[in-house]
Amino acid sequence: MRRKMILSASLNLRNLSKLILPPLGASATSNQNQIESKGWIISPMDSRYRCWQTFMVLLVAYSAWVYPFEVAFLNASPKKALYIADNIVDLFFAVDITLTFFVAYIDRRSQLLVRDFKKIAMRYLSTWFLMDIASTIPFEALWFLFTGKHKEGLSYSLLGLLRFWRLRRVKQLFTRLEKDIRYSYFWVRCARLLAVTLFNVHCAGCFYYLLADLYPHKGKTWIGSVIPNFRETNLWIRYISAMYWSITTMTTVGYGDMHAVNTMEMIFIIFYMLFNLGLTAYLIGNMTNLVVEGTRRTMEFRNNIEEASNFVSRNRLPKRLKVHILAYMCLRFKAERLNQQQLIEQLPKSICQSICQHLFLPTVGKVYLFDGVSREILLLLVQTI
Amino acid sequence: MRRKMILSASLNLRNLSKLILPPLGASATSNQNQIESKGWIISPMDSRYRCWQTFMVLLVAYSAWVYPFEVAFLNASPKKALYIADNIVDLFFAVDITLTFFVAYIDRRSQLLVRDFKKIAMRYLSTWFLMDIASTIPFEALWFLFTGKHKEGLSYSLLGLLRFWRLRRVKQLFTRLEKDIRYSYFWVRCARLLAVTLFNVHCAGCFYYLLADLYPHKGKTWIGSVIPNFRETNLWIRYISAMYWSITTMTTVGYGDMHAVNTMEMIFIIFYMLFNLGLTAYLIGNMTNLVVEGTRRTMEFRNNIEEASNFVSRNRLPKRLKVHILAYMCLRFKAERLNQQQLIEQLPKSICQSICQHLFLPTVGKVYLFDGVSREILLLLVQTI
Amino acid sequence: MRRKMILSASLNLRNLSKLILPPLGASATSNQNQIESKGWIISPMDSRYRCWQTFMVLLVAYSAWVYPFEVAFLNASPKKALYIADNIVDLFFAVDITLTFFVAYIDRRSQLLVRDFKKIAMRYLSTWFLMDIASTIPFEALWFLFTGKHKEGLSYSLLGLLRFWRLRRVKQLFTRLEKDIRYSYFWVRCARLLAVTLFNVHCAGCFYYLLADLYPHKGKTWIGSVIPNFRETNLWIRYISAMYWSITTMTTVGYGDMHAVNTMEMIFIIFYMLFNLGLTAYLIGNMTNLVVEGTRRTMEFRNNIEEASNFVSRNRLPKRLKVHILAYMCLRFKAERLNQQQLIEQLPKSICQSICQHLFLPTVGKVYLFDGVSREILLLLVQTI
Amino acid sequence: MRRKMILSASLNLRNLSKLILPPLGASATSNQNQIESKGWIISPMDSRYRCWQTFMVLLVAYSAWVYPFEVAFLNASPKKALYIADNIVDLFFAVDITLTFFVAYIDRRSQLLVRDFKKIAMRYLSTWFLMDIASTIPFEALWFLFTGKHKEGLSYSLLGLLRFWRLRRVKQLFTRLEKDIRYSYFWVRCARLLAVTLFNVHCAGCFYYLLADLYPHKGKTWIGSVIPNFRETNLWIRYISAMYWSITTMTTVGYGDMHAVNTMEMIFIIFYMLFNLGLTAYLIGNMTNLVVEGTRRTMEFRNNIEEASNFVSRNRLPKRLKVHILAYMCLRFKAERLNQQQLIEQLPKSICQSICQHLFLPTVGKVYLFDGVSREILLLLVQTI
Repeated sequence: MRRKMILSASLNLRNLSKLILPPLGASATSNQNQIESKGWIISPMDSRYRCWQTFMVLLVAYSAWVYPFEVAFLNASPKKALYIADNIVDLFFAVDITLTFFVAYIDRRSQLLVRDFKKIAMRYLSTWFLMDIASTIPFEALWFLFTGKHKEGLSYSLLGLLRFWRLRRVKQLFTRLEKDIRYSYFWVRCARLLAVTLFNVHCAGCFYYLLADLYPHKGKTWIGSVIPNFRETNLWIRYISAMYWSITTMTTVGYGDMHAVNTMEMIFIIFYMLFNLGLTAYLIGNMTNLVVEGTRRTMEFRNNIEEASNFVSRNRLPKRLKVHILAYMCLRFKAERLNQQQLIEQLPKSICQSICQHLFLPTVGKVYLFDGVSREILLLLVQTI
Repeated sequence: MRRKMILSASLNLRNLSKLILPPLGASATSNQNQIESKGWIISPMDSRYRCWQTFMVLLVAYSAWVYPFEVAFLNASPKKALYIADNIVDLFFAVDITLTFFVAYIDRRSQLLVRDFKKIAMRYLSTWFLMDIASTIPFEALWFLFTGKHKEGLSYSLLGLLRFWRLRRVKQLFTRLEKDIRYSYFWVRCARLLAVTLFNVHCAGCFYYLLADLYPHKGKTWIGSVIPNFRETNLWIRYISAMYWSITTMTTVGYGDMHAVNTMEMIFIIFYMLFNLGLTAYLIGNMTNLVVEGTRRTMEFRNNIEEASNFVSRNRLPKRLKVHILAYMCLRFKAERLNQQQLIEQLPKSICQSICQHLFLPTVGKVYLFDGVSREILLLLVQTI
Repeated sequence: MRRKMILSASLNLRNLSKLILPPLGASATSNQNQIESKGWIISPMDSRYRCWQTFMVLLVAYSAWVYPFEVAFLNASPKKALYIADNIVDLFFAVDITLTFFVAYIDRRSQLLVRDFKKIAMRYLSTWFLMDIASTIPFEALWFLFTGKHKEGLSYSLLGLLRFWRLRRVKQLFTRLEKDIRYSYFWVRCARLLAVTLFNVHCAGCFYYLLADLYPHKGKTWIGSVIPNFRETNLWIRYISAMYWSITTMTTVGYGDMHAVNTMEMIFIIFYMLFNLGLTAYLIGNMTNLVVEGTRRTMEFRNNIEEASNFVSRNRLPKRLKVHILAYMCLRFKAERLNQQQLIEQLPKSICQSICQHLFLPTVGKVYLFDGVSREILLLLVQTI
Repeated sequence: MRRKMILSASLNLRNLSKLILPPLGASATSNQNQIESKGWIISPMDSRYRCWQTFMVLLVAYSAWVYPFEVAFLNASPKKALYIADNIVDLFFAVDITLTFFVAYIDRRSQLLVRDFKKIAMRYLSTWFLMDIASTIPFEALWFLFTGKHKEGLSYSLLGLLRFWRLRRVKQLFTRLEKDIRYSYFWVRCARLLAVTLFNVHCAGCFYYLLADLYPHKGKTWIGSVIPNFRETNLWIRYISAMYWSITTMTTVGYGDMHAVNTMEMIFIIFYMLFNLGLTAYLIGNMTNLVVEGTRRTMEFRNNIEEASNFVSRNRLPKRLKVHILAYMCLRFKAERLNQQQLIEQLPKSICQSICQHLFLPTVGKVYLFDGVSREILLLLVQTI
């Protein structure tokens, strides 16, 4: 009795974590699997809803690109085509707000899907509803409706900043993709970083042009010192120049052909460069992380093989044993069985028993020795192999 | 008997560390918790003292900014407002020195709080008192008092360098915040690095201007070759120009619109760039560390799920088992139970038993089988589950 | 009986992974060792075939260098020598395609060598044959044959892009070398990164020159603004200038003496810098990985020694014990036995027993106590030491 | 019996590594400790010899700095003072060569100190003797002795390159310091990287000046386009300019005020920048490694505390237990006992027993229960606690 207790005490420490929280997995999954759109409530896992969300992310990408561009380059002479496109995009976002009232959500505590309309509405109204509405109202159109005039200048821009609220959808998409093992983590992460970099470069380029545009003395601006009458130049050339400066600064190449001329530009560049320092460090940090992860298996393989051959030569094992050991190592690597043991140790006992049963019961049942032994005994035997 | 010894010998190696150093935690904490300001001695954990310390850090930030600025830009014509502000700040630091004599400290050996006035005074006098005094004495005011003249130039600057001694408070604050789990490690670390970067950029900018200011041939300086009579220019423009050059060099953008002209400037830039090389590498190293830490959980999750699905497909387990295994993995990740087992293994036995008792005793007590069994036996049973 | 089952159950979880997949190593190796070229089928491990493959990689390096060079610099006036060399290289690749039909391959599923001609041909035809053919056909020579005229300009270049398909051979070579413990991982990885960097720099330099060459207004190009009549300049100077710009931009030095002048150049530089940002981060990430791996052993040693001396001083162990512990630590590090235990735990039981048998049987056999004991009993004894 | 064998089999796998290689530590150390200079043979651990070696490293630093400087800047007009200093340094190296014949060495195989003069001489003659001699012969002085003329130009430089062979002493010094726990790994590593960077920058700067000096058309060089008649300028200004260019390029700041003008310079810069790309990546990689190592403990602490508080709140443990657990965690961190258990597991059984004996025997001996029990039994008891 005492001996058993000592044994179980030693097991206790190892298995306590499994005992405390029983594997609720079964019930949780059954909920996640039984998802069907019922009544007016849409499941968040519904494939059509997923498509809609992906489409919304594209619209977000459009509005994140077009808004700084409009503010900086079309401030004086807005284009009608873009104006209409903007309003259509806003319409889509309004539809999405209405839709969100009918989308079920997963409760963070119980990990269960909530399909109750009231609860969904309460949750949405108390969290993101206001911001979503604020980022969707077409202030400019309303202004035009009430006053009959187009708003101009920076007041319009500041309200437009609310549209950047939409960017959280892009973040959500990437966070979801990162956890999805169907997509390569490396490429999802690279796409995310590229998106952040491009958005940063685009915004900085537009703002830098805006600074030159608003400066009273045209000749004493970064673009004015290169292209004297830059306001009459082609829109495309101005945009490319701003992007060229922006990316030259961001990547720290800094040719110096377009540098700050007046104090306002210097101040902006100071903050832009400080931000870029952080962003570059973040990019490099991420890439290092990905490279380490990507080469981990090759390195483990090399280390294993090197250790094995060191071990063999140190103990002067015969060649036959060396061949066996190295071949076993290679096979283990190819079969990706490196961490199998660790994996099995994590699983709760009931699942381990099921695995044993599935793998060994058919074989053991056929053995002559166990002929006539009842199925229950065989099960017990198999579970304790 | 022998068997038990073998067993205990194997346990021995695992538990030796816990045996050698008994968990003194209880007593140490009770000291740390029972902290009340008693008599004239202030506890270092007192919330009002914490506020005072944070306020002192703000004053340090002010004096770290203002001192290089004064030396470089206001050398010839000091401003009266700044002069008064400096002396007020020095006054606050003098108050802090007096205060420190009444603040209890934690002895490094025994981890106990020392409240004895004599010991506190001895410790302070023998460690930082002299430096604190030296960095607080208003040399300039004393000079003015005794001679009736304002000191000028670099002699004043060198004594002012002592004020940088105060920066150790900022370091202490950040070190404390980094260990406080109420604040995100990522943002505390970023704030620390940003503070270091800004201080470096500010000092370098001021010193670079000072070099130009002291150089006899005004036209052959970095700023003189851009703004010919720079001494008459607005103070603000000169400061922004120096910052602009400093940050352009620090981030390795290097536009080249403001480059070294004379030999002194070249020598300074050589050292500044060498230092920046180290600083940039340090920034990137820190960011990599933070990124690795930040994405660790997602990566572990992906690796676990990938291994599990590889394991399942390799052994051709039935779909039912696959669903169970993956659901268990997901739940484990969501419930943040990844390292629970490791955590429990670290705890000393007495705490483990208390946990078991708290979690299982109520349940076991209700079981019909143990009806009538004495509480002591139940406790023993529960502790060895 | 029950006790044994509990014991084996605890062993079960540890050894399940070894039980599920028996060590197939022996059979797999014997296949890999018995490789002799039989009939017309060449083994991929044949040393002469390996030489041929290395030679082909050199030819790939030549064509990767010469193709962008020809397109950019010899567009107007192709050199006859290069033209002939190109066709000879193409001939070698044609030979290689024929050869591939006779090279055995290792089946990914069974890890066995397939020597059946039909299977080899089927596999090649269904995978890379078409691309190999397309990248080898000498389009220019065929065009000349049918029309009697030399093709010119960019149409020729686009078909030539197919030749970059050959670069996968270089990738294969490096992937193979990385897994070969006879070569240092550090230097193989560095060589790979250097190859990628050089190829990138070369291509960008050539394309940048091509942009200047094709631009109608010669003075408004990056090279035209430095060397006014650059088309008449020495080919060598033009090539070096392009490389100089390319590497200045790639390493983010960006002197600015050769910067973009027209919009086309700006657009190209924007994409080139974005790509370089990723490449630089990738280089740094790889180097960090290599440095971490390279200094890992020294760090482990330092940490071990520091922990040991802390442990000794904390527990006030006598000097004699301290010397023993530190000496043991040093010896362990020197003998590279750090992970020996881990290595042995990975090996399947049969191999462990063979090792024990090899190491201990001769010694145990000589012991007086076991004199007369049968060899079988000794074997059993040795295997369970 | 069988049960014991199963038990020992399970122990077997864990302890095999300790069994195979018995702890030779004791004997190895006794050798390393008993080192006294005996007869004419000097021990490599002798403190005076260590001082001599450190002095030699200083001389190496001098000759690594002075040689490129002489070649580049004093090519036309050598200074007599430097010429004499060089020959004195060479003399010291000659003394060191003689000395090396009398310095014992540690055999790599047996880890024993070899004090046999013949073996030392054989080993030195067969390894580094020739290179040491070649790097010490004062070719210039010999040339002057035989021909009566001073050699000039590049032929002298090429033989001088042999002096860089001495740099391996610096590498040896740093490798030794890195393994010495008396010095901070962080600062030793930083010093090493700084030494490499400075040497690289110095050499590149000198070579870049040499290129300008040797170029026939003085105006078309990097320095000639800034300082027209640079040959007549102060030596100091020329040297600082070269360093300034070198470090500006190395840190990728690239102001562009001193850029390549002719093709030779472009070619040199291409190789210099490629090399710098690798060096910068190496610097960042090292710094990342150091940062990760430096913040590891704080991170472990935070993770432990966070896990513990998560665990507590998930299982709704009472506050009393929470305080205990957190206090235990804090104390563990402060007492640096994080990896104590791991450390003890690594030690061989005999050392573990000695530790137990030292720590527990005095206490157990005093216990009333064991009064009269013989010392042998107590020892046995203590060893199996």
